[in-house]
Formats: sequence, structure tokens, C-alpha cells
Amino acid sequence: MIIDCHGHYTTAPPALKAFRQAQLARVADASLPEPELGEITDAAIRASIEENQLWLLRERGGDLMIFSPQASAMEHHVPDPATAVAWACASNDLIARVVDLFPEHFAGACQLPQTPGGSLDHSVAELRRCVDELGFVGCNLNPDPSGGHWTSPPLTDEYWFPLYEAMVELDVPAMIHVSASCNPTAHTLGAHYLNADTSAFMQLVEGDLFGRFPTLRFVIPHGGGAVPYHWGRYRGLAARLGRPPLDGHVMRNVFFDTCVYHQAGIDLLGRVIDVENVLFASEMLGAVRGVDPETGFHWDDTKRYVDALDLPDEDKRKVFELNARRVYPRLDAQLSARGR
Amino acid sequence: MIIDCHGHYTTAPPALKAFRQAQLARVADASLPEPELGEITDAAIRASIEENQLWLLRERGGDLMIFSPQASAMEHHVPDPATAVAWACASNDLIARVVDLFPEHFAGACQLPQTPGGSLDHSVAELRRCVDELGFVGCNLNPDPSGGHWTSPPLTDEYWFPLYEAMVELDVPAMIHVSASCNPTAHTLGAHYLNADTSAFMQLVEGDLFGRFPTLRFVIPHGGGAVPYHWGRYRGLAARLGRPPLDGHVMRNVFFDTCVYHQAGIDLLGRVIDVENVLFASEMLGAVRGVDPETGFHWDDTKRYVDALDLPDEDKRKVFELNARRVYPRLDAQLSARGR
Repeated sequence: MIIDCHGHYTTAPPALKAFRQAQLARVADASLPEPELGEITDAAIRASIEENQLWLLRERGGDLMIFSPQASAMEHHVPDPATAVAWACASNDLIARVVDLFPEHFAGACQLPQTPGGSLDHSVAELRRCVDELGFVGCNLNPDPSGGHWTSPPLTDEYWFPLYEAMVELDVPAMIHVSASCNPTAHTLGAHYLNADTSAFMQLVEGDLFGRFPTLRFVIPHGGGAVPYHWGRYRGLAARLGRPPLDGHVMRNVFFDTCVYHQAGIDLLGRVIDVENVLFASEMLGAVRGVDPETGFHWDDTKRYVDALDLPDEDKRKVFELNARRVYPRLDAQLSARGR
Repeated sequence: MIIDCHGHYTTAPPALKAFRQAQLARVADASLPEPELGEITDAAIRASIEENQLWLLRERGGDLMIFSPQASAMEHHVPDPATAVAWACASNDLIARVVDLFPEHFAGACQLPQTPGGSLDHSVAELRRCVDELGFVGCNLNPDPSGGHWTSPPLTDEYWFPLYEAMVELDVPAMIHVSASCNPTAHTLGAHYLNADTSAFMQLVEGDLFGRFPTLRFVIPHGGGAVPYHWGRYRGLAARLGRPPLDGHVMRNVFFDTCVYHQAGIDLLGRVIDVENVLFASEMLGAVRGVDPETGFHWDDTKRYVDALDLPDEDKRKVFELNARRVYPRLDAQLSARGR
């Protein structure tokens, strides 16, 4: 089977966005009433999925997508904890409804109610709720809740440890994924996302997080940001900084997805990164929509690029399925229970 | 001939660093006397170059390096303009002495006395001094003088226009190069440099700077950050954002160097970026020193990687020489005057 480990609900029914706008209005004017999420029918959810992600998944030969709330809409820069909790809860509940409606095709990963510099207690609680009660298999962790100002400590700092302890206990990985940029120097899709991937990786090279949490696992999306293209730089920097070689130091715990939107990029990824560390993903419908006029295919139809890799079939199966089942053991358990 | 467009004086005699430390001490305690740069003999400069950059240049088959002050030491985050001016002046004067001692092998590019949010008047004056009086052929422009907090406007903002007007008038390009990171989330060499390259490129995609300054030219170092690896993403984003195709919109004015420290990365660069837009560079002695145990050669011996590219000889000559002479016309004029 083919598992796409990186999809967001970018096509959620309009009531979700209306709820968010009411939240933000209330942040600006506390005299407004506590907003409530308007009714969203199963039919509306079905339509929003069947005409979009599920249609593309089938069209392109995929089977199942690990599905989470829209990343750019997480907006962790809004500092009010109660707002963040209600927003994550509403967004995650909607993901759970998608998964319930299409259990063969979607598995849930949750948004965390992070705030800049805020306690991670709410995030731990929401992670537990989503995993224990909703059956989610992973979460998205924002290394920069400020949205492009980078005011939080590096991922190796003990600030993050309560979340890691819960992740380890629950045996779920996190995808490292920032939200929208509030900084005009860093375009959300064309700079902030990739920069966050790159910074997070280097933070892990500098530190020794996996010495402390040997079973903690991170998926770094967008093909690992700049990292595979500069793989020699990272190997050389690790040596210069007196860090262990990357394969034992970081790459037992870190995985890159295949959200790289051209053949040459995927070819590089396949050439320099061990096949055990690559997870198939497309992020559709995400940052880059439409058709590449040079190929006649959608930019984010990444399965074509992986199919074209010069890899043995058993290695392709790792990228398409087995690595995801290893990194997301709760997904593997759910699939196995259904005989898949 | 072989021109390396990206080298820094990372081996300057200790008196330069002592001067900087005295400057910073005076920033902290204004009662201290105005520091003066201690004597640096020609012999000390000769030794610092002959045993390092010049030795490696010859060893690896290079002829000339475009040479500028150490990038991480520019420290534009120090807000005092007078300190920035004196520091840039001292650093650039030392580059001029290197060029005077080894005119066959080095050409100057200057550090600008930028400060976070400060006027660019001093930078324009120092650029003019370095070009008109010292014979420099380019400059390094820091898009984030704050050092990882990204408090300045994007490069497309009119804040930067006075500098661009001088660059256009003098017909010199800028290498976009940040200095040391003051933000613990972004390692200087492993994240901040690459992220700045990526952000700068996307700023140029979003805007229309070259519509206003059609002859302005930027070199984006470190192989263009994450950009070539995500070339499909940028082509797709340009279309999604309603920007023109990259070749006409950005790539008449933007060039990537070859500071990518493994063969696979250079292969990708050569495959996706037009040969007219690639300038040979090594940044030695820079971020990544030492020998790659997999190849037995220095990581930053980038000439080996370019030599191994499957390109016709005439295209390699563009990468090694002709593109640099086109992007740096004052270098071309100096070389031509010497019959090279």
C-alpha cells in the first residue's frame, strides 16, 4: 500500500474559518461572546474530501494519507492559551470526523495548542486526547510559535521535554511544521517552511536530544528543507563541531518526507539520504498547486518522481509504506488490525 | 582562468580581531579610548594568505579569488553606526592590502557598515570609497543586520534603494551574505546562512525589484540555499502567486555560487539552474574545513565537483570564468587591462 505521510485539511468547510475569525475578533475585543463552531454536516465534510484529497489520492495511486489541520492556519503566534486550545480542539475534532468517515484512507495527526513561550501543558493534554480518545497517530510540532521571529528555544532545550516525554510514552512521532509567517522577510511557503526544516535539523545536529530520548522520532517535511542539498555541509559541520557522524547521531530518529516538487530534487534526496529515512508524502493540496508546464503533471504529484527513482522495488516499498509504518507504529497497529 | 567568486579573509592577522574586541569593549564602556588598529606588517599579511587561501587556490588549480572580510565577523547587529563604519573601514583596508600584495590572485569585495534599521548612507559611502579608491569589484550585502531576528524589511523594500542606486551607478554586484547569528535557533553556518539565501530569493520572487533596477545583480551564495533543491516549488509558487516565470523575472539578475560541499548537490545545481547563472566558488577557508572521509578530498574543494559535471567545456568555462567576468564587469576590466 501507499501511505502519504503529509496532508493537511486545506479544504475544510467554511464554518471552520468562520469560527477562527470569530475567535480572532474576540481576541481583539474581549466583550464579544465566546464563539461556537457552526454546524458542519457529514455531507459537507464528505464533499470537501471526496472532491479534493481523496480524489487526488485515488487518481495518483495512493491509499492512505496522514491528515492534519491546515498548517498555515495553526497561527500559534496568537498568545492567548484558551484561544489556542479551542482552535486546536475544533481543528482536530474535524480531522477525527474525516478519519471516521474515511477510515480506509485517512489517519489523524493533531495540531497542538502552542503559544509563543507558553507552557506546553495544554499541548501535552491535547496530544493525549487526540491519541487516546480520537485514535490519532502523530502530531505536528511548531518549532517557532512566534511565526517567523524565532523567539522559542531550540528543539533541544528542556522547554520542549514535557511534550517529548508524552510522545515517547504514547509512541507517536511529530512532524516539525511551522505555521504562517508573521515576518515579511520570510514568505510562508517559499521561505519560512523550508528555513524551519533546515534550522530544526541543525539544532538536532548541535545537541544530543536523542541521547536523552532514544525513541523520539521527528519527520522533517518538505524534503528536509535545505539539508539533503547541503548534505556534505552537514557531514562536514558535524565533524568540525565535534559531533558524532550524522547516521548514528541524528538519522536514527529523523526522517525526511518527499514533498519536493521536481524530479531532480527527489533524485538528490534518493541519492544522499538512506532509504530508511525517507517517507513518501505530497502535501496535497498544499503549497504548490497546478500543473508543471514542462511535464504536464501536477507539481505535487510526487509519486511520479519517486516511481522514477532508480531504486529496487523493496526500497520503494520502504519509502511508500514500510518506513511510515515503522515511524508511526500506531498507524501500523491500526492497519494490521484491519488486515492491511 | 578560474575565478573563485566567494572567499573571506578568515585568516586575518590577530591585530584585526584585537581591534574588534577593543571596539566592542568601548561599545560596552564609552569611557574607554577610541581603539586603533595595531600594526599589521606586509609580512604578516603575506604569511596569512600564502599559507592558506593562496596555497589552496594554487593547489586546487584556481587563479583568482574575489575576496572580502570574514562574513561572520561583520556583526552588523551592533547598533552603533560609528563603530560599524570604523570596523568596515579597517576590514576593507586590509582586503585592499591583500589585493595590492597579490594582484594576480585576489580582487576585493567590501563589507558594508550596516546596522539594524540604520541609514544606508554610510554603506553607500563605504561602497564608493572601496570601488573608487581601492578598486574593489563588488560588495557583500547583509539582508538581516540584526543577526537572525530579521527586523529589516525585505530586499525589495525602498529602504535598500539608496544602496542599489549606487551599485547600479558603479556597476558592481552584491553577494547576499548574512553575518553571525545572534539567535540560538539558527546556527550561523548550518542554518542562518542557508535560510538567508532562501529568504532573499523568495523576496525577489514576490517583488519586482529588477523591473525597477534592471541592471542590479545579486550573487546568492551557498549554492542558492534551499532554492535549487526546491526549484519545482519556486516555479510552482511563482505561477500560483501570479508572478512571471523565474527565468525572466529573477534569473536575469540573480546568480548562485557553487559552495555546495558534495558531488550530488553540485550535480543538482548543474541540472536545474541555467549554466549562465552559476558562478564557481569555494568559500575556502570557510564554514566547512577538513577532509570528507568518503572521498579523501576537502569538503570545500568544489572545483572537483564542478570538474565532474557532465557539461561541455564551453559551459564549464562560463561557470569557472566568463560568468564572473560578466557579473563583475570591473573585475573583467581589470583583468583585460592586464591582458588576461
